[in-house]
Amino acid sequence: MRELTIGIDIGGTNTKYGIVDRAGNVISHGSISTTGYQEFKDYFKGLSEALRKEIAAIPGEHKVLGVGVGAANGNYYKGTIERATNLPWKGIIPLADMFREEFDLPAIITNDANAAAVGEMVYGAAKGMRDFVVITLGTGLGSGFVANGQLLNGKHGIAGEVGHTSVNPAGRFCNCGKRGCLETYVSATGIKRTVYKLLADHLEPSELRGISFDNLTTKMITEAAVRGDVVALAAYEYTGRILGMKLAETVVHTDPEAIFLFGGLSLAGDLIFKPTIKHMEANLMPLFRGKVKVLPSGLQNQAAPIIGASSLVWNYLDNAHNTHLTEEAIA
Amino acid sequence: MRELTIGIDIGGTNTKYGIVDRAGNVISHGSISTTGYQEFKDYFKGLSEALRKEIAAIPGEHKVLGVGVGAANGNYYKGTIERATNLPWKGIIPLADMFREEFDLPAIITNDANAAAVGEMVYGAAKGMRDFVVITLGTGLGSGFVANGQLLNGKHGIAGEVGHTSVNPAGRFCNCGKRGCLETYVSATGIKRTVYKLLADHLEPSELRGISFDNLTTKMITEAAVRGDVVALAAYEYTGRILGMKLAETVVHTDPEAIFLFGGLSLAGDLIFKPTIKHMEANLMPLFRGKVKVLPSGLQNQAAPIIGASSLVWNYLDNAHNTHLTEEAIA
Repeated sequence: MRELTIGIDIGGTNTKYGIVDRAGNVISHGSISTTGYQEFKDYFKGLSEALRKEIAAIPGEHKVLGVGVGAANGNYYKGTIERATNLPWKGIIPLADMFREEFDLPAIITNDANAAAVGEMVYGAAKGMRDFVVITLGTGLGSGFVANGQLLNGKHGIAGEVGHTSVNPAGRFCNCGKRGCLETYVSATGIKRTVYKLLADHLEPSELRGISFDNLTTKMITEAAVRGDVVALAAYEYTGRILGMKLAETVVHTDPEAIFLFGGLSLAGDLIFKPTIKHMEANLMPLFRGKVKVLPSGLQNQAAPIIGASSLVWNYLDNAHNTHLTEEAIA
Repeated sequence: MRELTIGIDIGGTNTKYGIVDRAGNVISHGSISTTGYQEFKDYFKGLSEALRKEIAAIPGEHKVLGVGVGAANGNYYKGTIERATNLPWKGIIPLADMFREEFDLPAIITNDANAAAVGEMVYGAAKGMRDFVVITLGTGLGSGFVANGQLLNGKHGIAGEVGHTSVNPAGRFCNCGKRGCLETYVSATGIKRTVYKLLADHLEPSELRGISFDNLTTKMITEAAVRGDVVALAAYEYTGRILGMKLAETVVHTDPEAIFLFGGLSLAGDLIFKPTIKHMEANLMPLFRGKVKVLPSGLQNQAAPIIGASSLVWNYLDNAHNTHLTEEAIA
């Protein structure tokens, strides 16, 4: 009997889901709009119906073992989504309990970057590594830490929010309520803001002057940079410099073997990796220089967030002797 | 038969050692100068002789099980001290091997703040906690992380150097070769530098104007602050503000239950805790606010570094099934 898991990636715009086997093959997948429902209960109903159809359509003998969910501010211990700044629902949503009730399956929730980190460990470029960091560069900047071979969840289940470390306390406004957070500079939205800042401050011609803020995408900026657009090139240089400076701080916290960059911005190759590595090394405490690799994720494809989320279930089942997940009292 | 361990704390000025029992009682202790020997081999000879006398003088039936050493830049995996900026010896010193040869005992080395963290977990205020941070405020600023109930050593054995995260890239010169590191502001030396900066910039009378940089101690600054000296008070406010701002960044990395402050500066009570907590909360990503305690170490006494170092041995023996320490290949 084929054993399968459901992986769900709740993004700021779309929710992607898929049925995944042990080897990381996505048997089938689909998506619904995250923002297309006014109320959370309507969204959950829509998602449940879509999943039910997906499960019903699985061919052959099989057993679905659990649901893994990656979502901004997903809380691993509580199984909740807590005040996610990039999602339309307010308050604390008991998503794991809802999935358990609806499907009678164990449900594991964590933030999307933690899901990516477990995915990287189970299926990606971090196989065999015990200490690494995954930085997800999407609408925001997420991070997931593995240390001593374990996902680092923290006391309250919310470890790994380096997107909200400070670049400049008087800097850009952030969804989280603070100013100058790393993700306001380094993310799909961050680099757009940088492009607009550069267009405002400088006189250089740029093909990006013809594109509205709403229409501008990371892909357009990358393509313009590849064509030699000075503003696009400067935007990548600036983004990499800030990411490198802040990664130098993250490195001295947990001393990882590697930092993996995942998502839109990381697909720009040298445009982002070169300045990031250069400024990380320049800002590192000398003891750490030359020791920490900055690499592209090994899961750079559309299905990666689904695979990452599904890997939460395998990781959970493989560590079922570790009762910490269910028994930990939350302060 | 009484089981005992040797705890050694190699500080920038003095090396303290003691014989410690399972309950954390220091049976006997002593110290030698760290800086009084030109060559490392002479220092090691002096230390070995002192330890041999200490061991010979232990009354009753007993067995010494191992040596634990806390030292700046102590590398847990390699058992070395690597280019420690606060110690007089250059290069990489294979201290664990030297102790093993000299005393035929297992020797565990880690940086002094990691030793403090294990001590806090075994004997101190972090008993039963699985996720916490210890910040040691001595000549420099050290940090030790426990996550998922384990000391976080990192890939290269050098995790936890938050003293070398950046406050201001163009700021004060640091022993590590960079500028503006946290420990140049928040440490015994850091607060002295702040006092001198304030005395230079402002006109306020202060009893600290009569004391030379070399003679000024944290204790003098604390006593002046208690008497209402405006410069001393402002120095503590400034130090706590910077510590709080940077702790807000550390918190979002590992999501600890508590942060313990240990050492000289932390003995100033409200003078340091109040501004630290206030500015940590103000700079925290809102999701984390009100969740993380900032507390004094439970090992606030002279023998704490020795107890912390000795606890490395107990922790090692208790986790002897974890062969990671000896088998890990170092990249």
